[in-house]
Amino acid sequence: METGRKRDGAALIALDWGTSSLRGFLMDGAGTVLEQRANAHGIQNLPQPGLPGFEQAFAGLCGEWLAGNPGVPVVAGGMVGSAQGWAEAPYVACPADTGTLAGHAIAVDSAAGVRILIAPGVTYAPPDAPPDILRGEEIQIAGVLADRPDWAREACMVLPGTHSKWVQIEGGRMTRFATYMTGELFAVLTKHSILGRLMPVDVEADADARDTAFADGVRAAQASGPGDLTHQIFAARTLGITRRMAPELLKDFLSGLLIGHEMVSGLTRMGAALGSGRPLLLIGDGALCRRYVQGLALLGIEPTARLENTAPKGLFQFAIAAGLIAPPAGKDTHV
Amino acid sequence: METGRKRDGAALIALDWGTSSLRGFLMDGAGTVLEQRANAHGIQNLPQPGLPGFEQAFAGLCGEWLAGNPGVPVVAGGMVGSAQGWAEAPYVACPADTGTLAGHAIAVDSAAGVRILIAPGVTYAPPDAPPDILRGEEIQIAGVLADRPDWAREACMVLPGTHSKWVQIEGGRMTRFATYMTGELFAVLTKHSILGRLMPVDVEADADARDTAFADGVRAAQASGPGDLTHQIFAARTLGITRRMAPELLKDFLSGLLIGHEMVSGLTRMGAALGSGRPLLLIGDGALCRRYVQGLALLGIEPTARLENTAPKGLFQFAIAAGLIAPPAGKDTHV
Repeated sequence: METGRKRDGAALIALDWGTSSLRGFLMDGAGTVLEQRANAHGIQNLPQPGLPGFEQAFAGLCGEWLAGNPGVPVVAGGMVGSAQGWAEAPYVACPADTGTLAGHAIAVDSAAGVRILIAPGVTYAPPDAPPDILRGEEIQIAGVLADRPDWAREACMVLPGTHSKWVQIEGGRMTRFATYMTGELFAVLTKHSILGRLMPVDVEADADARDTAFADGVRAAQASGPGDLTHQIFAARTLGITRRMAPELLKDFLSGLLIGHEMVSGLTRMGAALGSGRPLLLIGDGALCRRYVQGLALLGIEPTARLENTAPKGLFQFAIAAGLIAPPAGKDTHV
Repeated sequence: METGRKRDGAALIALDWGTSSLRGFLMDGAGTVLEQRANAHGIQNLPQPGLPGFEQAFAGLCGEWLAGNPGVPVVAGGMVGSAQGWAEAPYVACPADTGTLAGHAIAVDSAAGVRILIAPGVTYAPPDAPPDILRGEEIQIAGVLADRPDWAREACMVLPGTHSKWVQIEGGRMTRFATYMTGELFAVLTKHSILGRLMPVDVEADADARDTAFADGVRAAQASGPGDLTHQIFAARTLGITRRMAPELLKDFLSGLLIGHEMVSGLTRMGAALGSGRPLLLIGDGALCRRYVQGLALLGIEPTARLENTAPKGLFQFAIAAGLIAPPAGKDTHV
């Protein structure tokens, strides 16, 4: 029997369950995080394979909360709802708002006797190009939409990462988006391609020199024409071989090049370029977002805001939209 | 004592010594290949590390030829002249012709008592972008230049591969070039990125369906704007997940996308687009070059010619330019 851990006012258990990590939030009825816990049991790193692994990871993270706060609803978002997750919550199509996510959520009844409501991912199918998908980011976006009706009306939200997302918001809904494999491409090129061979592992580079190398990459991207990327990345080798750039800076140059290409394309695609007047929001981790701020500045653009983890807020809004908890008194959820 | 292998008329031993293979050609004074041998002792796969490895690989491939045909000169081109090679033959700058290569060749005196003349690579430093480099392709190009004065006057030569090269020829010289990491990017994405996970290893796909998927990739590249590649490659995942493309075709789509991006950029960069009237030559292996022919056709371009391995001819021309052998009677070498 699990030892209970009662918290006065506990109203929701919210799980941000991704590929490599599981984060849990015990929240009150106003959306305030009372407690949070995290472990490395992402869906590709479960304590055991298959369904028992999901059960065990869930019980391990939330057992005390569940035992101490019976009847508190549980929601989850992220890769836990993918085809490789606990249960598949198929993608819903754009345009989509938080209500759309709630309307297409799926429920899992866990062995602990608790029902978990899992949010779906979102797909966007342009008329003239292959479809795009995201899963997890829709929850972070839901967290922003509820708080800021001005941004919910119209904004471009950028979520940098392994697979960066550029998302168009109009009228409180995600209307279209584009994925960029920037982070993953950087990882495979530095780890597995010839470009990584010139990059030292242990050398600490000067911060200003790193900024300059990053800026060189962004400016090269800015000057690029269609198709130029696979040519330009080779410079992360030639600059090293010809000793025009110190080896410990080649990574920053490559990072600037890849992030620069993402920004050049994303700004055009989302109509968020300089002078559009549309808010541009950066959502994500500090260090990476700072690189995006630096890159955007080189393109003459200052983001409207930089937001850290908005997933707890988004899961809270998802729970409200699903009718699992009541909206906080005096608050309009704007969904 | 090595057993000799005498060949009447033997005038040159030519080595095409790359990263993963070593190819040797015993040639007569007219440039005809009398015998050829190859093994896997590329510079990154020597029988033992360092200088003894080069000696052993050389003796293993050419020992019989050397013993049987004393006094025959030896030339080599490719990665054997790189910083990781037998001896470094530093890059020479564009514009460069076969005479430039000969003028900057370096000699190695092997333990077998034979001197080997190694060709340098070539570098191109544009005024407004990082420098580019090639090594090995200059020899293949030398083989074409000598044979075809019309192409030597003006042409765009495309050498598809791990690192594809697009080379501008003007007045018998390489005047500029650009490298595209197309083949390596395809390899790391299919082997090490999330894109590879949906690609089955053992499924044989229908040839027509593969052509169609490849064409879809080329057309996506043709429709792309600056910076779009890292977005577009994600389609090799979404097309699979949304079941719009059979898993066994995703590789061909990705190949078309990457080759398409290379072609869109290369044609623009080299001014070799449709209607330029400039010869466009494909140099390289059959299967890969056929994909390029197919891709170029989608862009409305038919290559002027497709040439298989021109390295032996190029090494022969390099030996003439270095004064190691006489030009064949009645033949102008056009260098």
